[in-house]
Amino acid sequence: MYTYQKEINLKPRARGFHLITREIESSFPDISNINFGMLNVFIKHTSAGLTINENADPTVREDFESHINKMVPENQAYYKHTFEGPDDMPAHIKASLMGTSVNVPITNGKLNLGIWQGIYLCEHRNNAGSRKIVITAQGN
Amino acid sequence: MYTYQKEINLKPRARGFHLITREIESSFPDISNINFGMLNVFIKHTSAGLTINENADPTVREDFESHINKMVPENQAYYKHTFEGPDDMPAHIKASLMGTSVNVPITNGKLNLGIWQGIYLCEHRNNAGSRKIVITAQGN
Amino acid sequence: MYTYQKEINLKPRARGFHLITREIESSFPDISNINFGMLNVFIKHTSAGLTINENADPTVREDFESHINKMVPENQAYYKHTFEGPDDMPAHIKASLMGTSVNVPITNGKLNLGIWQGIYLCEHRNNAGSRKIVITAQGN
Repeated sequence: MYTYQKEINLKPRARGFHLITREIESSFPDISNINFGMLNVFIKHTSAGLTINENADPTVREDFESHINKMVPENQAYYKHTFEGPDDMPAHIKASLMGTSVNVPITNGKLNLGIWQGIYLCEHRNNAGSRKIVITAQGN
Repeated sequence: MYTYQKEINLKPRARGFHLITREIESSFPDISNINFGMLNVFIKHTSAGLTINENADPTVREDFESHINKMVPENQAYYKHTFEGPDDMPAHIKASLMGTSVNVPITNGKLNLGIWQGIYLCEHRNNAGSRKIVITAQGN
Repeated sequence: MYTYQKEINLKPRARGFHLITREIESSFPDISNINFGMLNVFIKHTSAGLTINENADPTVREDFESHINKMVPENQAYYKHTFEGPDDMPAHIKASLMGTSVNVPITNGKLNLGIWQGIYLCEHRNNAGSRKIVITAQGN
């Protein structure tokens, strides 16, 4: 068994949900060395998350943004952590709801995703820069 | 260290939360080959999820279904992705809230779950068929 | 590749969100043996969870508690699993929203967290005791 690991910077995105599967695959060709194993993608931030969901219709990603803004609204009277702007504390909560990393099986040198699955960057800040992720593949 | 991996089809379930621990263990006996390691169970769909929770009282699973329907209601005016029915877009969001995979430590050839823990299939569609999962165990 | 694994008991905490990064690192020095790999921290309970979020301002953790209590309120008429008290069923749901385990890359013998990231114990019961976690590190 081997471990391959690489840290990369994702290009900056607007607030919302964005497909990054291809950006991950193209920047981490080591996946092709593994017959059977696991990939972990980890984001080194607390106001953006990662999840796996539908990879075809862009309105799915728009509806994610609409609904998560309703589930975790800005400007609530009980927020104490407000000095970084109204989008900041909701961004922290949203990041934990979506999660900080995703795991994907690797089979025969490829990500073994379902045909409708893609990896999402969940960008919860209004004006975020590049996001750092660590990609780790382990297997035979 | 070794990697064991297998893709299986779960039997179809009704919308709701379902214990699948025994179905996973019985279809993946390779767990017994590992003294210390990790298991990953990954679902290859975007409208069903996996989580770990209470394995004893069936009303816990009923309450999960009641509450997640309140947290992510159907027929909201802001949903744009509506052509697959009112249960579809909520199913995508619920799947990401629960998660696409679970990790469980393996210790002495067995899943090292707490005594009250079981693995749930979170089925969010009204009329879903069989769901594909990939089970991967890695360890010594 | 090697697997290191250890089960430890976290000291009891009050209901709320608590940083446990140092408690994990100090009780699991095996991390320093791994150049490239992954750490998994798994909680063996169904009414407490684990997540990764902001490690600096304590009001972030207070706001997490305020908001999750609003997202998953107690004493809802549809709860059937009520015999362990009003905080119990919400605790199960919150645990699945936050998650039962976290994965962190290990790089050069250290957790490769972002500078603002820490591991949280999400304690959802009013009067919980010590919580058991299983820590597993795998890598080269």
